[in-house]
Amino acid sequence: MVEHSESAGCPFGERLLRAVLDRRTPAIVGLDPRANELPGVLRHELQNGSHLNTARLYQKFCCEVLDVVGPLVPAVKPQAAFFEELGPPGMAALQEVIRYARHLGLLVILDAKRGDIGSTAKAYARAYLVPDAPFAADALTVNPYLGPQTWQPFIEEGCAAGNGIFVLVKTSNPDSGVFQDACLRQGKAVYQLVAEAVQQSAERTRGPFRYGSVGAVVGATYPQQLAELRQAMPAAWILIPGYGAQGGTAQDVAAGFQEDGTGALVNAARHVLFAYQRSPYREKYGEMDWQRAVENAVRDMIEDLAAGTPARRLRSTP
Amino acid sequence: MVEHSESAGCPFGERLLRAVLDRRTPAIVGLDPRANELPGVLRHELQNGSHLNTARLYQKFCCEVLDVVGPLVPAVKPQAAFFEELGPPGMAALQEVIRYARHLGLLVILDAKRGDIGSTAKAYARAYLVPDAPFAADALTVNPYLGPQTWQPFIEEGCAAGNGIFVLVKTSNPDSGVFQDACLRQGKAVYQLVAEAVQQSAERTRGPFRYGSVGAVVGATYPQQLAELRQAMPAAWILIPGYGAQGGTAQDVAAGFQEDGTGALVNAARHVLFAYQRSPYREKYGEMDWQRAVENAVRDMIEDLAAGTPARRLRSTP
Repeated sequence: MVEHSESAGCPFGERLLRAVLDRRTPAIVGLDPRANELPGVLRHELQNGSHLNTARLYQKFCCEVLDVVGPLVPAVKPQAAFFEELGPPGMAALQEVIRYARHLGLLVILDAKRGDIGSTAKAYARAYLVPDAPFAADALTVNPYLGPQTWQPFIEEGCAAGNGIFVLVKTSNPDSGVFQDACLRQGKAVYQLVAEAVQQSAERTRGPFRYGSVGAVVGATYPQQLAELRQAMPAAWILIPGYGAQGGTAQDVAAGFQEDGTGALVNAARHVLFAYQRSPYREKYGEMDWQRAVENAVRDMIEDLAAGTPARRLRSTP
Repeated sequence: MVEHSESAGCPFGERLLRAVLDRRTPAIVGLDPRANELPGVLRHELQNGSHLNTARLYQKFCCEVLDVVGPLVPAVKPQAAFFEELGPPGMAALQEVIRYARHLGLLVILDAKRGDIGSTAKAYARAYLVPDAPFAADALTVNPYLGPQTWQPFIEEGCAAGNGIFVLVKTSNPDSGVFQDACLRQGKAVYQLVAEAVQQSAERTRGPFRYGSVGAVVGATYPQQLAELRQAMPAAWILIPGYGAQGGTAQDVAAGFQEDGTGALVNAARHVLFAYQRSPYREKYGEMDWQRAVENAVRDMIEDLAAGTPARRLRSTP
């Protein structure tokens, strides 16, 4: 295990804490571009449906979203799959979107759910987590199935640069329980065993700071597990997907926070990106002013989280 | 669940069976290019170490490996991480390597260990498993942690085109047991629960054929589990990494086969690709004739598997 060292600077968990305190909200925006949901004003540029054309449009759309959300939230979460679907031009668009987000001062959590062994995990770390990586993000989501030692190359390669990982603990989908909730002889569930390893890694990488470089992903759709996991992983940030489009509410995510309103990030993607399609934004802004719809959806989300979760305390910090 | 349908043509498992019977060996070659292990004759072209330059060299190296192994083995397994590490030029190289392998009549199993929920899994399937995908492979490795329903988009998108997935069941790394071997209250281990779901998916997708579209990954380094999993998943092909460089021998992988020598694929990557560095190939061929070293390493592997496993019966088929 790489312990935190002085030379490593502050761990990802501390950088994230500062970003959240600065923007005073745990809301983050998922960048999940989908060709058939783009606002008409962009969709009409989908001339031939080639991967190159679509990739350029995804880049344009995401960067225009970033222009709006950049001053409002601490981080964004691009979803790698939607860019990979477009081949090398999609990956080039992802690269530009990550660069632009960081240029705007946003932390980038790349949602790619990677995981492999030894030198292969190291290659993934060098693709996504080192400072000169082609897709240099601040953090990467990682799948735990192969074992906690397989996270180590991500920590070793990324940690020194102040980057981090979020390990999948309890995912937001309806059948996440089939393997994750399987009950072990010792009385724990599989996800609880994973959470213990996450807490150990977070503790080992936090140094003198409160949160380490290793966080967890826990879906908004499982509020009870979220409450329990918040207790079980005090040194870990929890990234909570599933707010909005997947049905999670402020009430559902409230238990993911520490009392002071830190420790949780709440992600919304479709709910924000394609707000122009939904009431009341559709009536107010329509497709022509889809950016205002995004802005207002994010502001509403920030208000909702401030009203219904301990994140309200981020507002009262001087 | 998408059941097998007449219109779907033959499932991936049957295509793979035909390829194995045609080449009369379960040996497959992993394409894991590493800049610092390339033969000197190629490495001297690594002029500036730019990603573009390295990506072109990876493509050249892999295609020259394919020229050698194309007539000998049924399939190859490119490792996505080593290409992703080079950014968009790496992904373009991966694209060309996949195309060239299929052009030579090889099946391509892309080792990318993807896994996500709903429409995100669908995007991954469209990146890697549909006929017009940018990285159109014949099969993809998939991580099971998110639950068996999350494999469904891969099956639905890829199955109709005769493509398949290999789900990670028991991986070859030393600490794979931390989560995979965790013992459930019902007496099974987690990997056995995953294997049950794999067998069900394989059974549902096999139609009138012997093997379905869903296979399993089981490491050569766990011969006991391999024997047990062969029994537990009769409708599933087992992809066995870990032969050679990771320490697995013919004896270790023997239990992964059915009696007639089908049902298992044995992968070697470094062991074959960088054979020129190892005795006796180094002495016989050296760096200048690294392709002969690859060829002889593959031929030796084929002989080793024929001598020490039920794969010998593939030789006696008329």
